[in-house]
Amino acid sequence: MSFASLDEVHAFCRALPQGDGLAATTAKERQASLTKPPGSLGRLEELAAWMAHWQGRALPRLERVAIAVFAGNHGVTARGVSAYPQSVTAQMVLNFQRGGAAINQIAKAAGAELRVVPIELERPTQDFTVGPAMSANDFLAAVNIGYATVQPDDDLLAVGEMGIGNTTAASALCAALLGNGAEPWAGRGTGVDDDGLARKRRAIDAALARHRNVLGDALQAAAALGGRELAAIAGAVLAARKHGIPTLLDGFVATAAILPVARPYPAILDHCKAAHVSAEAGHRRLLNELGLRPLLDLDMRLGEASGAAVAMSLLRAAIACHHGMATFSEAGVAEAQG
Amino acid sequence: MSFASLDEVHAFCRALPQGDGLAATTAKERQASLTKPPGSLGRLEELAAWMAHWQGRALPRLERVAIAVFAGNHGVTARGVSAYPQSVTAQMVLNFQRGGAAINQIAKAAGAELRVVPIELERPTQDFTVGPAMSANDFLAAVNIGYATVQPDDDLLAVGEMGIGNTTAASALCAALLGNGAEPWAGRGTGVDDDGLARKRRAIDAALARHRNVLGDALQAAAALGGRELAAIAGAVLAARKHGIPTLLDGFVATAAILPVARPYPAILDHCKAAHVSAEAGHRRLLNELGLRPLLDLDMRLGEASGAAVAMSLLRAAIACHHGMATFSEAGVAEAQG
Repeated sequence: MSFASLDEVHAFCRALPQGDGLAATTAKERQASLTKPPGSLGRLEELAAWMAHWQGRALPRLERVAIAVFAGNHGVTARGVSAYPQSVTAQMVLNFQRGGAAINQIAKAAGAELRVVPIELERPTQDFTVGPAMSANDFLAAVNIGYATVQPDDDLLAVGEMGIGNTTAASALCAALLGNGAEPWAGRGTGVDDDGLARKRRAIDAALARHRNVLGDALQAAAALGGRELAAIAGAVLAARKHGIPTLLDGFVATAAILPVARPYPAILDHCKAAHVSAEAGHRRLLNELGLRPLLDLDMRLGEASGAAVAMSLLRAAIACHHGMATFSEAGVAEAQG
Repeated sequence: MSFASLDEVHAFCRALPQGDGLAATTAKERQASLTKPPGSLGRLEELAAWMAHWQGRALPRLERVAIAVFAGNHGVTARGVSAYPQSVTAQMVLNFQRGGAAINQIAKAAGAELRVVPIELERPTQDFTVGPAMSANDFLAAVNIGYATVQPDDDLLAVGEMGIGNTTAASALCAALLGNGAEPWAGRGTGVDDDGLARKRRAIDAALARHRNVLGDALQAAAALGGRELAAIAGAVLAARKHGIPTLLDGFVATAAILPVARPYPAILDHCKAAHVSAEAGHRRLLNELGLRPLLDLDMRLGEASGAAVAMSLLRAAIACHHGMATFSEAGVAEAQG
C-alpha cells in the first residue's frame, strides 16, 4: 500500500483497525490462572494482554522482532542547532551497517532484526526558518518508505531514528501541535551548549511564525516542520496498525514523529507503548500530554531506537511468563483464601 | 567461610572489601570514546562502570549469572497476616524445582542459573508476637546457608525469596530499624484484605513492643523479627561482596533483608543495585531511606527474585554496548564540536 495524498492518510486514520478484544480477554483469564497472586507481575501482565490484543493471539509470540531505524538530514542545522556536523548522520548510518553502534549491540542482545533505512541523506530537508522542511509529496514519500519497512508477519516493531538536528524538528512539532512555544520543548539534544540552545529556540519560534497558516492541519505541520525520518516513523506505525503489530516508540523524536497523527487521531496510540522516557528535556512532558506511561526511565537520550530495544527484553519476560508458567491446578498450589 | 557469632558478622562488615576504582575509571574512559554523545546511554553507562568496579575488570563479563531464591516459613502466619496458607511456601518451592513459576521463565530468558534454597520449611520461625523469631544460632545458620550459595566465580548475583508471611517480617524490620511503627511499612503482600492488614499491623506493633530491648543491635533485631530466607539473603550479599560480585536486590522483602546490615554499615550497598521498586507499600519508602534508585518500576510485587531477574537484561544491554561498540576513531565518526 502507499499513500498518494495527505487526504488518504487522514482517511486511513479515521478507520483504524481495532485489534482483537477476545484474544486479550482470554490472555487475561490465563494470567489469572497462573501460579502467582493476581496482578503480582504488574505491567508484565498488562504487556502480555496488550500483545494478545494487537496480534490477535491469546498466546502472543515474539519470533520475528524488528527494529526500524530511519535516518534523515535537516537543513535547519545551518542555524547552528546541534553539537555535531550534519555529516555525522551518514557516518552513523555506516556505523549501523558495520555493526559498531549501540543499537547493533542492543538489538543482538534482544534477538531482534535491525533495519536501517537512510532516506535521501544527500538531500536534507529545507531549513524550516526559510520555507517548509518538505513538500507534501516529499513527506508522503517518506511516510511510504516507513510503511514499506514493516513486514506483515513481524510480531513486534520498535521505531527509532538518527538525524543530526532532528530534536529541533521534533521540538518544533510539539510546540506547533501542543503549544507553549519553543522553550519547554527544546532541550540540548546530543549536547548543544547554551548558545546553541538559544539558537535552537530562536529557529523554532521563527518557524512557528513563518508556517502558522498551515499548522491547523497536523499532517501539513509535519511536512513543514518535521523530517523524513520522522515521517517514516509515522508511516511504520500506520503499517504496524494495519498488520496488528504491537509497537514500541523510542525516545523524544520517535514520539514527536507520531504526534501529527496522534493529535487528531489519539487511537493510533492504542497499539503503541512508550518504551522509555528520555533525558531529553521535552520527552516527559510529551508523554504526559499523550497519556503514555513509559516502561523504562534510565536517563537514556541516544535515539537509534536504543531505549525501545532495551525495553524489548521486558516484553520477552512477559511472554515467557505468559507461555511457560504453570497454573494453580497444574502445580497443585493452593489459591488465595476467601 | 562461616560466621560463628553475631560479633563475627559485625567484624566482617567493619572491613568490607572496597572494589577496584582503577577498573571503573578505565571503563568510564572507554565509555567516553564510544560512538555516542557522552552520557547518552544514561544508566547503562553507570551500570557498566559499576560492574567494572566490583568485578575488578575494565571489561566486565556476564558469563556466569546466578539467581538465588531462598525460602522460609513464618510462625507469625498464625496471626492471620497472609491471604495464603503457610503450606504454599513448600508448594511454590516444588513449583520452582519443576520449572513452573514466573522466576523459572524469567531466569531462562535472562540466561541465568536459578538456585532454589528452601531452609527448614518444616520448622517455621517462632511467632514473633510470642517470642523471638529465631535464636542467634538459627539466624547465623541461615546467614551461612546464604553465604555458601554464592560461588566465587559468579559474575552477577540476584537475590530473592519465597515465604508466606514474610512481608510481615520485612515490615517489622523496617519499623524496628527505621521507625514510625507498622502503619507506613505494612502493605497487602500477596493480597491480604482489610481485616488481614489490620491483623498484620497489630502483630508488628506487638512484636516491636515485645522485643524493644534487643532492637538496638540490628543483627539481634534481624533474629528477633526476621526470617530464615531474609537472613540467607543477607549472607549471600556478604559473600557477593567478599568475591567482588555485583548484586541485584529484588523487591521489598529482599531489600528489608539487607537492612540489618545496611543500617549500621551503609557501605554494604555499594555493590548492590535495587533492581526494581515493588508495588508493595513500604518498598519505595525503604529505597528512599537507603538512597537506592531502582532500575525498574513495573508495579511488580511477586518476589521470587522476579524483578531482579527482569533487570538482568538491562545489565546485559549495558555490557553488550560496553564491549561491542566502535570508538569514534574506529568508526570514522566526527566528535562533538567546540
